[in-house]
Amino acid sequence: METRTGPTAAVAAAAGGHGAHLACAGRGALLLALVAVAAAVFLPVTESSCPRDNSLVKDVSKMYQSNYGREGFSHITIAGALAHGMKEVEVWLQTFGPGQRTPIHRHSCEEVFVVLKGKGTLLLGSSSMKYPGQPQEIPVFKNSTFSVPVNDPHQVWNSDEHEDLQVLVIISRPPVKIFTYDDWSVPHTAAKLKFPYFWDEDCLPAPKDEL
Amino acid sequence: METRTGPTAAVAAAAGGHGAHLACAGRGALLLALVAVAAAVFLPVTESSCPRDNSLVKDVSKMYQSNYGREGFSHITIAGALAHGMKEVEVWLQTFGPGQRTPIHRHSCEEVFVVLKGKGTLLLGSSSMKYPGQPQEIPVFKNSTFSVPVNDPHQVWNSDEHEDLQVLVIISRPPVKIFTYDDWSVPHTAAKLKFPYFWDEDCLPAPKDEL
Repeated sequence: METRTGPTAAVAAAAGGHGAHLACAGRGALLLALVAVAAAVFLPVTESSCPRDNSLVKDVSKMYQSNYGREGFSHITIAGALAHGMKEVEVWLQTFGPGQRTPIHRHSCEEVFVVLKGKGTLLLGSSSMKYPGQPQEIPVFKNSTFSVPVNDPHQVWNSDEHEDLQVLVIISRPPVKIFTYDDWSVPHTAAKLKFPYFWDEDCLPAPKDEL
Repeated sequence: METRTGPTAAVAAAAGGHGAHLACAGRGALLLALVAVAAAVFLPVTESSCPRDNSLVKDVSKMYQSNYGREGFSHITIAGALAHGMKEVEVWLQTFGPGQRTPIHRHSCEEVFVVLKGKGTLLLGSSSMKYPGQPQEIPVFKNSTFSVPVNDPHQVWNSDEHEDLQVLVIISRPPVKIFTYDDWSVPHTAAKLKFPYFWDEDCLPAPKDEL
């Protein structure tokens, strides 16, 4: 996996790294560690985890990235509804380590992939049966493109054992409303809506007190 | 510029190359040349110049590309409304040779660029004055991304003297309706609508005879 330094990595290093170092810290180092912890505690959460950035041109290598709790995964919202005010399209850069996969999921929006690095497999189930069923397995490769039919349950899998799979993903109708399936035999009606999706959670405005 | 072999290149080679070779051709070669010319003449135009392809996964290096009459330019519709049935988003891969630029233009859709190779300049005029006016000049570079504000007149320019500029372009509301300006002082009301745009022209269905 490529690693990038983003705001969260910096905050995590500041907040998480102090345990091992405190035992042998001199006074200056102790003070620095305390300042870092205090900064991590008092910074508003939305500042550190929603990749808001209104600059017109953005360096993708400096944009906020996270694995959102999935090992061997990296997601960057290159142009997003909640983060950047997009209304009709959203663009993501995603990297999957060897063996990693998206959940089995569907969404009622258009989705186009462009494979920038590596190779993998698109697993594509059916939306016309009551459940996805045995998926088609379709090879994808560097410099290939594919569109997922609206509402078809699917999974993108880095089926390679060595290389990362990196894809640019374009969706319509952001923010994405994703229905996930535990396996290919779960009925469509039992798929679970996850909204907002992980990378959108931190960008939602705080609920208003409307009493 | 990168060059790719597409269906049009093959047909052009077959149709255009026969003049020089006929004089010294043996019977077999003559026959082959005649067959090639006949194929070029009788193939429907839409077959050779609209990049329709319904396969789920496409190799971008084998997709139809053209310069659409602009020297030092290459356009591939990676996922298109007219060519591939997209309804809400469209994705293009465009390459500009050193010094090449888009026309000055505007469109009332969202547009996101991801710079894959090279560097250049985004020229951005105003949509709030009566004409675009002196544009801002904003550097763009490999692995950067930018969105063009809806309806703002703009121009993408490969301002580098040596390298190609290659961008992935995402638009909403396809097919694109483009208004072009001869220069930055043309009033917005005098910009010219070019629709269908060059890469969409060959994909439109033939007009019906409705007498």
